[in-house]
Amino acid sequence: MNISKRIDNMTFSEIRKFIPYSDEAKERGIEVYHLNIGQPDIKTPEEFFEAIKSFEGKTLKYENSHGIKELINSFIKYYKSININLDKDDILITNGASEGILFALLTLCDFGDEIIVPEPYYTNYNNMAKMAGVKINSFRTYREDGFHIKSKDEILRNISPNTKAMLICNPGNPTGVVYTREEVRLLCDIAVEKDLFIIVDEVYREFVYGEEKFTSFMYMEDVQDRIVLVDSISKRYSACGARIGMLVCKNKLVSSEFMKLSQTRLSVSSLDQIGAAKLIDVTPQYLSDVNKEYEKRRDVLYEGLISIPGVSCEKPSGAFYIIAKLPLKDTNHFTKWLLTDFNLSNKTVMITPAAGFYSTEGLGLDEVRLSYCINCEDLKASIEILRHGIIEYKKHFK
Amino acid sequence: MNISKRIDNMTFSEIRKFIPYSDEAKERGIEVYHLNIGQPDIKTPEEFFEAIKSFEGKTLKYENSHGIKELINSFIKYYKSININLDKDDILITNGASEGILFALLTLCDFGDEIIVPEPYYTNYNNMAKMAGVKINSFRTYREDGFHIKSKDEILRNISPNTKAMLICNPGNPTGVVYTREEVRLLCDIAVEKDLFIIVDEVYREFVYGEEKFTSFMYMEDVQDRIVLVDSISKRYSACGARIGMLVCKNKLVSSEFMKLSQTRLSVSSLDQIGAAKLIDVTPQYLSDVNKEYEKRRDVLYEGLISIPGVSCEKPSGAFYIIAKLPLKDTNHFTKWLLTDFNLSNKTVMITPAAGFYSTEGLGLDEVRLSYCINCEDLKASIEILRHGIIEYKKHFK
Ligand SMILES: Cc1ncc(COP(=O)(O)O)c(C=O)c1O
Ligand SMILES: Cc1ncc(COP(=O)(O)O)c(C=O)c1O
Repeated sequence: MNISKRIDNMTFSEIRKFIPYSDEAKERGIEVYHLNIGQPDIKTPEEFFEAIKSFEGKTLKYENSHGIKELINSFIKYYKSININLDKDDILITNGASEGILFALLTLCDFGDEIIVPEPYYTNYNNMAKMAGVKINSFRTYREDGFHIKSKDEILRNISPNTKAMLICNPGNPTGVVYTREEVRLLCDIAVEKDLFIIVDEVYREFVYGEEKFTSFMYMEDVQDRIVLVDSISKRYSACGARIGMLVCKNKLVSSEFMKLSQTRLSVSSLDQIGAAKLIDVTPQYLSDVNKEYEKRRDVLYEGLISIPGVSCEKPSGAFYIIAKLPLKDTNHFTKWLLTDFNLSNKTVMITPAAGFYSTEGLGLDEVRLSYCINCEDLKASIEILRHGIIEYKKHFK
Repeated sequence: MNISKRIDNMTFSEIRKFIPYSDEAKERGIEVYHLNIGQPDIKTPEEFFEAIKSFEGKTLKYENSHGIKELINSFIKYYKSININLDKDDILITNGASEGILFALLTLCDFGDEIIVPEPYYTNYNNMAKMAGVKINSFRTYREDGFHIKSKDEILRNISPNTKAMLICNPGNPTGVVYTREEVRLLCDIAVEKDLFIIVDEVYREFVYGEEKFTSFMYMEDVQDRIVLVDSISKRYSACGARIGMLVCKNKLVSSEFMKLSQTRLSVSSLDQIGAAKLIDVTPQYLSDVNKEYEKRRDVLYEGLISIPGVSCEKPSGAFYIIAKLPLKDTNHFTKWLLTDFNLSNKTVMITPAAGFYSTEGLGLDEVRLSYCINCEDLKASIEILRHGIIEYKKHFK
């Protein structure tokens, strides 16, 4: 009576082991700034709540497995506004992007097949791949390059005859990279050359700052049939708890197969779908205000970080994360120490050691991922905590 | 660039192919009684909607992956009322029972492992098993026996060294069987003898009629560590669209491993959890009224069915389905014909051919599954449609 090797090989959330320390710090009266989470503090648009509050049905029924018509139509409208033309069969409503990625892997890969992913990457991809019995091959991208793509050869070297798809997060978590049009093109060319599907996770699409231009993989006309686009309202509308995502795919064979998976779990939350369908009525101002706020936060965090002696990072162009190298050897230990042994005027920070985002053993040990989902003032305070924390830590450890 | 063999081997919902015919019938002005669905028509308790409507948060955040405290506590209270004592770590909130079953399979089985399931069974188990790369071995139960368990030997014969778990639905969909205490005990003894986990799907727990007594597998003290209980509010509170289910497991190793899966998909809908947490305040009267209503419906449908010449079925004790043998050879064809070629005073019925519930090729071809999720009057009308439909059909086909 043993559990499966599959589950045994899966990992718990990296951050989980630090939560008790953070809770204990709070109990000791220490205020903890959370630079560890990808949970926006922005308000969810009122339209969402209003739609749900005015629901008048008496029975909460299974909706159809594909997703409710109003929601699909609202997404068609949203996509049209960013120059992507879809029809209703191109969209499947999912339980967040999380379910979408799993569905994509199950549909495109068999047990033992491989996908290729730029490293560092969103940690949950590991468990999703293991759920589907899929192996992740990574190719490396470097902090010094702002995690942009360096060499076609390195990518090709990591593609095997068992590689079925690439999985690309753009804009990137944890890197903040926004791929240039040339990089997107390069990846598409490789997909064509190696006959791969392209799973693209664009949940941070609206989080691209300043002059930077976002290029959706969907803009590449010649590879439309290779693309499975994963999207979500979680970050875009600060509606993480609504668990509404979608798969977008113009390859009719693939998108029709998705229905087998969606029918198996029957439907997605009816009320969340009803709320999400009204997000199309949110003024464009909402998204642009959010974007401006995050750009300010990025600047505060980035400028603050490079002002700390020994810290290095590149300025990211998207999402809401920065990977920074710290002048110490073991950011895992440092993360814990900040919670258990340090405070600055009764305040400390919770950060994420970066090693968990790398699949190559030994990488990222001196890096951390910092998110900027808290306001500028708190970010500034966090920087000072980090600055003093590093100095203090180095008195005791290397 | 091929899709996976895994997805290719999965099947679309059986009922899906009849929906266009039912839609066309409705367009022709025919009223269609739906005896095909497992969607209760009962009202969802007001408490659910009220809790959501009074939600005052501004940001819809990811809740913790385990499930919100209020909801877990409310389930502990519910279980206490049916004499099952749980602590909070024994419960994981899931996206409906559907996700719970998948989690159970992923946690207990590796690719190529097997589970044993009494046939006929809930069709979606097939796709769930394929998602997890698990093979279903079935042992047969018979309509003539009311789908009760006949022989220990037949079960043992179908257990191989690769069998990791049994998957038992009690009360049963599509069979309506409620296992006696002796049957539950027998299954537990086999689990001990063969060292198996027991996955029990008790989503129809409250739907047990008349004098019949429900025995939860959780009542068997000696096998507590083998049991993974799958449960849901979908049927109990007529809240299918809320997508709230749970896994209950007292084996701490197993339940802690579930967290890897729940963390990977982050969280379950916040608002649905908030609504579901208040269902504990629903008066016991609600459940007993619902139970009485379904018992009446069962009686109407059962009495009606056996009054039709050539139809045979046993009176089920639970859930809201009956499997009936019809006096014709191809219920698949008959189901379509009822929608395309027949009506009685402009009314017809949509039913489910039973073959899809069997895994053994050739079984169930002359059987249908009928659900009684519609009111007694409509059930009576449906019986008359079936009675006349069968007569008419037999003039043209066998
Ligand atoms: C890169 C990436 N993809 C997917 C997700 C999951 O999003 P959802 O809430 O839509 O499941 C996240 C959440 O943090 C993410 O960072
Ligand atoms: C036997 C059985 N198990 C599980 C489910 C799925 O329930 P949920 O809505 O909780 O996912 C159903 C739904 O019809 C069912 O009949």
